[in-house]
Amino acid sequence: MKSYITIHPWKIIEESFDAELHPNSESLMSIGNGRMGQRANFPEKYSGESLQGSYIGGVYYPDKTRVGWWKNGYPEYFAKVLNSVNWIGINLKIGNKTIDLSKVKFQSFYRELDMQHGILSRSCSFKKKGITYIIDTQRFYSQNHKDQCFLRYEISSDQKAKIEIDAYLDFDVRNSDSNYDEDFWKNHQSKSGKKTSWVRATTKKTKFDVIAAMRTASPNQNKFKTKQKDRSASHVYKVKLTESDSFIFYKYVGICSSFYHEPKQLEGIANDTVKLAEKTGYEEASKAQAKAWKDIWENCNISITGDESAQQGIRFNIFQLMQTYNGEDARLNIGPKGFTGEKYGGSTYWDTEAYCLPFYMSTTSQEIAKNLLVYRHRHLRKAIENAQLLGFENGAALYPMVTMNGEECHNEWEITFEEIHRNGAIAYAIYDYIRYTGDDSYLAEYGIDVLTGIARFWVERVSYSNAERKYVILGVTGPNEYENNVNNNWYTNYIAKWCLSYTAECLSSVKAKHPDRYEELCETLTITDEETKKWKDISERIYEPVSKSGGIYLQQDGFLDKEDLTVEDLSDSDRPINQNWSWDRILRSPFIKQADVLQGIYFFEENFDQETVERNFDYYEPKTVHESSLSPCIHSILAAKLGKQDKAYEMYLRTARLDLDDYNNDTEDGCHITSMAGTWLSIVKGFAGLRIHDGKPAFTPLIPEQWDSYSFKIVFRRSLLEVTVTKTEVTINNLSDTDLEVVFNGRSRNSDAGSIITAKLKP
Amino acid sequence: MKSYITIHPWKIIEESFDAELHPNSESLMSIGNGRMGQRANFPEKYSGESLQGSYIGGVYYPDKTRVGWWKNGYPEYFAKVLNSVNWIGINLKIGNKTIDLSKVKFQSFYRELDMQHGILSRSCSFKKKGITYIIDTQRFYSQNHKDQCFLRYEISSDQKAKIEIDAYLDFDVRNSDSNYDEDFWKNHQSKSGKKTSWVRATTKKTKFDVIAAMRTASPNQNKFKTKQKDRSASHVYKVKLTESDSFIFYKYVGICSSFYHEPKQLEGIANDTVKLAEKTGYEEASKAQAKAWKDIWENCNISITGDESAQQGIRFNIFQLMQTYNGEDARLNIGPKGFTGEKYGGSTYWDTEAYCLPFYMSTTSQEIAKNLLVYRHRHLRKAIENAQLLGFENGAALYPMVTMNGEECHNEWEITFEEIHRNGAIAYAIYDYIRYTGDDSYLAEYGIDVLTGIARFWVERVSYSNAERKYVILGVTGPNEYENNVNNNWYTNYIAKWCLSYTAECLSSVKAKHPDRYEELCETLTITDEETKKWKDISERIYEPVSKSGGIYLQQDGFLDKEDLTVEDLSDSDRPINQNWSWDRILRSPFIKQADVLQGIYFFEENFDQETVERNFDYYEPKTVHESSLSPCIHSILAAKLGKQDKAYEMYLRTARLDLDDYNNDTEDGCHITSMAGTWLSIVKGFAGLRIHDGKPAFTPLIPEQWDSYSFKIVFRRSLLEVTVTKTEVTINNLSDTDLEVVFNGRSRNSDAGSIITAKLKP
Repeated sequence: MKSYITIHPWKIIEESFDAELHPNSESLMSIGNGRMGQRANFPEKYSGESLQGSYIGGVYYPDKTRVGWWKNGYPEYFAKVLNSVNWIGINLKIGNKTIDLSKVKFQSFYRELDMQHGILSRSCSFKKKGITYIIDTQRFYSQNHKDQCFLRYEISSDQKAKIEIDAYLDFDVRNSDSNYDEDFWKNHQSKSGKKTSWVRATTKKTKFDVIAAMRTASPNQNKFKTKQKDRSASHVYKVKLTESDSFIFYKYVGICSSFYHEPKQLEGIANDTVKLAEKTGYEEASKAQAKAWKDIWENCNISITGDESAQQGIRFNIFQLMQTYNGEDARLNIGPKGFTGEKYGGSTYWDTEAYCLPFYMSTTSQEIAKNLLVYRHRHLRKAIENAQLLGFENGAALYPMVTMNGEECHNEWEITFEEIHRNGAIAYAIYDYIRYTGDDSYLAEYGIDVLTGIARFWVERVSYSNAERKYVILGVTGPNEYENNVNNNWYTNYIAKWCLSYTAECLSSVKAKHPDRYEELCETLTITDEETKKWKDISERIYEPVSKSGGIYLQQDGFLDKEDLTVEDLSDSDRPINQNWSWDRILRSPFIKQADVLQGIYFFEENFDQETVERNFDYYEPKTVHESSLSPCIHSILAAKLGKQDKAYEMYLRTARLDLDDYNNDTEDGCHITSMAGTWLSIVKGFAGLRIHDGKPAFTPLIPEQWDSYSFKIVFRRSLLEVTVTKTEVTINNLSDTDLEVVFNGRSRNSDAGSIITAKLKP
Repeated sequence: MKSYITIHPWKIIEESFDAELHPNSESLMSIGNGRMGQRANFPEKYSGESLQGSYIGGVYYPDKTRVGWWKNGYPEYFAKVLNSVNWIGINLKIGNKTIDLSKVKFQSFYRELDMQHGILSRSCSFKKKGITYIIDTQRFYSQNHKDQCFLRYEISSDQKAKIEIDAYLDFDVRNSDSNYDEDFWKNHQSKSGKKTSWVRATTKKTKFDVIAAMRTASPNQNKFKTKQKDRSASHVYKVKLTESDSFIFYKYVGICSSFYHEPKQLEGIANDTVKLAEKTGYEEASKAQAKAWKDIWENCNISITGDESAQQGIRFNIFQLMQTYNGEDARLNIGPKGFTGEKYGGSTYWDTEAYCLPFYMSTTSQEIAKNLLVYRHRHLRKAIENAQLLGFENGAALYPMVTMNGEECHNEWEITFEEIHRNGAIAYAIYDYIRYTGDDSYLAEYGIDVLTGIARFWVERVSYSNAERKYVILGVTGPNEYENNVNNNWYTNYIAKWCLSYTAECLSSVKAKHPDRYEELCETLTITDEETKKWKDISERIYEPVSKSGGIYLQQDGFLDKEDLTVEDLSDSDRPINQNWSWDRILRSPFIKQADVLQGIYFFEENFDQETVERNFDYYEPKTVHESSLSPCIHSILAAKLGKQDKAYEMYLRTARLDLDDYNNDTEDGCHITSMAGTWLSIVKGFAGLRIHDGKPAFTPLIPEQWDSYSFKIVFRRSLLEVTVTKTEVTINNLSDTDLEVVFNGRSRNSDAGSIITAKLKP
């Protein structure tokens, strides 16, 4: 754990410089606008430890797979998020010497990420040859014009000094996680006009074309020289500083890619983009930026009073999510590290459906949530091909574990081939979306194709056990990746069972409501009554492993053969076990990485009575080491449901401040973007207890002891509700012009348009 | 399958050239002398498909591990068998043009490996500009002077012609399976004196120093020029051929390494070696070579009459084994590809103990078999370190899956960390050695240390299951590598159980017979009575999975949940499944790669009644795809025991001609050296039914229908027996001067020194 960030309700603040923490801060203070983003690297030269990273959504490279031993079915490549053009670069010379910030001793240092306004800034001062220099810089990715980036740089000194500022674009960039130490970019070009400079490169294989155009301006000095190398272009200002005046200059950058524009038009568009940016000017643009973020926060903000640390945590998570994905483009998704690092590659895991979808459904428009589902619909053909690669037939679809364009790009057999429960989460998301939004047109239009592919996968994936006289699912890895290649993982079996019956049900519904579409499906997908009957039959006869007493759903067939230990039996030196134990020892231990049986109970809560939930929670949670960032939130929600308020709060803190306090000792690699949605879930589904009952939002709120109140908004269908929970009561303010029924602690109430209702909390 | 080798009792013959088969023949016709060896590459330039390979026992390179995803416990490197100096090279020029044998059209081509005399030869002719050239070449690795290599080269033409022969040594060699495309050698040197040329290089990291010295001589011409490059040295003969005379020349090479000699003395020794070789001369040396091989064959030959294909097969297997390992050096072992290819790296697998040891025990001296055991004793400390890496303590030893120097160098978690049954085979080999040789001094001197380390491993590796009220072994891979990370693999559990009780028993025996040594053990290994009591206790309470009816030992806990299919349910396009199915599909299928439960029944046969053996054989064999080269022999032996003569013969052919007929479509990578011992086992333990009963060799012979008779010798303690089996009877000729009791079909008989006894075969 590293807790050095100053607590503030709206800001991430670092009040002094520590080189060891710099890579951490680079992750935490990352900025982006949903289309692109970057780590909080220094603009100036910094030869200390740092992970340079600037990323563009959708622009990736298929890095040739690296394995020890090839297994049939492995994908040919792993899609890497690409480190792209460095647009912030500033080479600062004092006299003739380039300043390396890792070599200076800061007299003062202050860095903040202003989450309310979406701006990163840094102030620092240092002495060089007896002269003190003060630098202030801010930058942001525009939320208003998604291809624009702005940087302001101000430098002053306490005596006369000659400095040189070389503001550059640099495309000589590498990924730190290249499998074969390869440069992923080619065809580098650079060019300078009178006012504008450009750099441009193309990705190998995928041929994404990216251009960055730069203009610079200074109120203090018009004159600059352009300078060019193969892969970079600069504007160089030679400046004479005096005691009285600081030197200010602005860097306007337009980054345009062939992901959005025709390659032929790229240069023209980049030109227009940067011209417009300059015309707008930094100060105006930053006001517009603040306004744009105000609009974003309008619906997604969560306020907590009485606990600033919790407040900072939740806002940090929401901020990072919102700058990673804004749902405007159905081709994009929520990468596990967003724009904060390279690790894990790919952009889409099952995290999107299992964790992120509810956040976007409740805080943005229905259309944005829908885009997350359409994303998978677009990949259906590839999911079918992916299944074929593993030997499946007849339209069975297996969605990839990790993907960029629908193709699988993960390559550990026990995950890639076996962690097939991901298919279940994708089906569940359709159900969840329809349940929440009431948009059942989605089903006939898109959802049913995806569900059919998934159902067909399960049909081929189960096998019949003569011993059990049931359908079994052998050789899987469940959500708990600390068990591999197990038989009858309860979660997987349960979600497969559910997928089959739900898909059959959905088909009946499409048949009843959209007979033409049903006809079309029967033809294009050759669905027959016989097939759906088979789905139902298998669904009814899928084996569900339970303990002999019937009280515990078994994580897998052999779970009870494991030693009956809990996390309390571990010593400090054992933890985290994934860093201290060999893999085989982890596998045969009873310790659980993340919710597995409990993930299923969380999804299908309405199918289990409270005692069953509690019995399983009390059995599994004590065995769980929460070494996945996705783990604490599910436990927090279930604990809240069970009235285990302390456990719920403990788990909340682990998810909310996971990156800020560096719980897993890996923030330097980037933030855990997808699990951030889990923090939101912990409050809204956990503490406030939001569920959907019969198409109505239902709440069973509680409030952590440490808090005075908390408040959030949810978009529900055509309504916008503001929910405020205090120590004693819950208030719902219907901010929309649509009346609505809501449920408090099981009792239905009318929430009329524009009105406020309140209820007492359960004691 | 590729069956193009001419059937011959003593030779491997190829009667025409087919470029596609060339890499296959390069493997099959590999030659060596236990210390070094090489593939049957052409001396001349050949730009077609070919795997260049020349290897020196014990000289390896620790190639940096390559994995997709690092797991704790993985070794840092994989030891690679090294492609070493190319000593056979001959650059043949006609006019000014180097002849590339892949570009000529052979008029005639004949290649043979003479297994009786240990010589590889090739005759071929081709036309160039109207002139026909005939080349004859032979070569061998001396069995008499292990650092010497000999090559004879004769060329003639039907018209006058000018040719140039550039006979070279070349150290510019690479491995084809380098993880990072690295050159494993450095410090290349070359040098030429008046008569001798040298090349030399050192391996990176391991610093093995290898020098090759060459002399050449021709009865036709004294004059040659020397030529040198950085990594090569040549003797160049400019020759005028006439119709009447052929040009003959000899290449004498000495290859010396720091594995045997002081680096400082290497050059001098290489010099002496090659001088001596030249002095001996090719013709004398080849006579001595024939004599040496005659001696080798003396005891290890198996004669089969009535079936030349079977005869060729068994001799091929014995020949390859004998040129791979001769037991003279306890630091060497039997690599899976011997000197025939690079694949698999390392030199030692559990194959050595499970398959090769009985062959060497019966055909060579007791000392040589003992060296195979001492090899593991030498690695005990590393085995303890290897276990520590995985989290074991207290002197627990886990022998590596693959090794060169005792360190693990395999890196697939499901094998490296989980295929722990290898520890059992190493303990079993000690038992088998003592049972066979009667040398129980070995136990006190060496064996007991190894056994203790292994027993301690099992103690820590088992865990107690409350559900079963037994000790279980979770998360293993059994011999059948088509199941990974299973629980309670019967074979592993059984051999662990046996190891614990056997070690306790051995300790008692050491205590009784060697009290001083026992005292010492108690002190150095801190063995206590309490500890051995614990071994016995665990041994008694290890869980053994069996089917409910009790008739079938379960390959693992979940085996009966698998689909009840047999190999007959597979189509041709499915097989081999390891080439046609994805890995997950293989894992969840009921198909078995190699003997698993049956491996245990084979090892511990005396503990099972005939019905149990048969029931399990009939259950498992039909599910077995035999896609490991180690599979058919065990099944052949058990089938023979069960009187299933056809199955025994079918399995025999698969093992005996596995490489010759390229059953697994991979002979081009090299031969399956270790499984070759299985072929010998199939005859001696299978058809002849050799077992050791109460210290006596026991036979229950049968003869395959296709054979008229077969005959082999075994060294048994101080006796040498020649066993001959005909259609009707078995004869034992005691060739030694020691009387002996033997058992025929359960009846004890005296086999007096120098006498012959016979018995009827069981009908």
